This record gives sequence, structure tokens and C-alpha cells, in this order.
Amino acid sequence: MTLGANRIRHTVVLTPRHAAGSPEEADFLAAAAKLAEIPGVEAFEILRETSPKNGYRFGISMEFAGPETYAAYNDHPDHTRFVQDRWLVEVEDFLEIDYESRSC
Amino acid sequence: MTLGANRIRHTVVLTPRHAAGSPEEADFLAAAAKLAEIPGVEAFEILRETSPKNGYRFGISMEFAGPETYAAYNDHPDHTRFVQDRWLVEVEDFLEIDYESRSC
Repeated sequence: MTLGANRIRHTVVLTPRHAAGSPEEADFLAAAAKLAEIPGVEAFEILRETSPKNGYRFGISMEFAGPETYAAYNDHPDHTRFVQDRWLVEVEDFLEIDYESRSC
Repeated sequence: MTLGANRIRHTVVLTPRHAAGSPEEADFLAAAAKLAEIPGVEAFEILRETSPKNGYRFGISMEFAGPETYAAYNDHPDHTRFVQDRWLVEVEDFLEIDYESRSC
């Protein structure tokens, strides 16, 4: 599972504003899961964040074949609409972390 | 590549104190790479961190079959020695993030 040359693993850890385990939280995560349908998104995962060393509660991870695909995702209307309508309203705290191979 | 039940993906993003691209940095990363040899460590990767939205420069990612394997890694003398002798001395800033499946 080593990340190939030029590939980008885009991740974000987050804490929703919703109460843990609430229907509102589940609805938010279900909406986030639809980001997997945007062209170019690979290896999409929504995970629990469980380290006692930070306060984030979930993580989203996805991979792109390269920077052009990542840029197209960022600009895709389904992504920008999700950010505007859901993320900015329902996420209390987050941090984006992107990985690339050391060999490229 | 979805994370299986009970599995843990342990990640850390970091910025070494060393100058970017310096021999000292390469030596530190080479020492970190040897953590892959500790029993129970799977899917080990050292990656560049490239998001403009945070200041970390590298990431390390590994997976464990479950919490017992993760605990054994944490307590392994090769790990505790690396933390004491290298990490605490040579790392300027870091954040640990651990992921688990949402279904377990």
C-alpha cells in the first residue's frame, strides 16, 4: 500500500459540532461519504479517530492519481457545495494533511 | 485498502529540527524507517507532508492488527529508545493521529 509516485493521499481529521452518535452526526457523515462519487477519488475512507493525544473524532482519507485530479476534485461543484452547505456549518474543528511519496 | 475491523492505523505528522534536505534530516528519517522492523508493524510508510494548510513536513504511517500489537510496539525497546534518543531531540513539532474502522 505504499503511495505511488505522483499520487496524493488527501486526509482531514475533524470534530463535528453534533453530539457523538447523534442522528445529525450520522447524516453529516453520510453526506461526506458521497464525496467518494466525485471523479478521480480513490481509496476513500471515513474512519474513527481514536488517539487520546488529540481531540478529533473522525478522519476522511482519499487518494488521487496526481495534482490535476486533486485540483479537479477541489473545484468540483459537488465538493464546493458540500463545503459551503455542510462542512462550514457542521464542523467544529479540523486539520487537513496531505501525503506524497518521498521518491517523486 | 479500507481498514479492517480491529485494525489500527497509527500516523504521526512531524517537522524535524534539521534543515530541509540536510544530511542530518536524512539520517533521522533513516533511523525512523527502522521502526518498520519492530514486530507487528505493517504497511509502514514515511511520506512527505505537502498540504499548504499546515506546517508539518513529513508523515509516518503504520498499521497494527489490533490494540495488543499496538501496545507491544509502543513498549518495544527499539521504539522507546528511538523516542528517547532521536525523536525527543530531533523533532520540533508533531501530532499523532490514530484511525480505526467505524464498523468495529
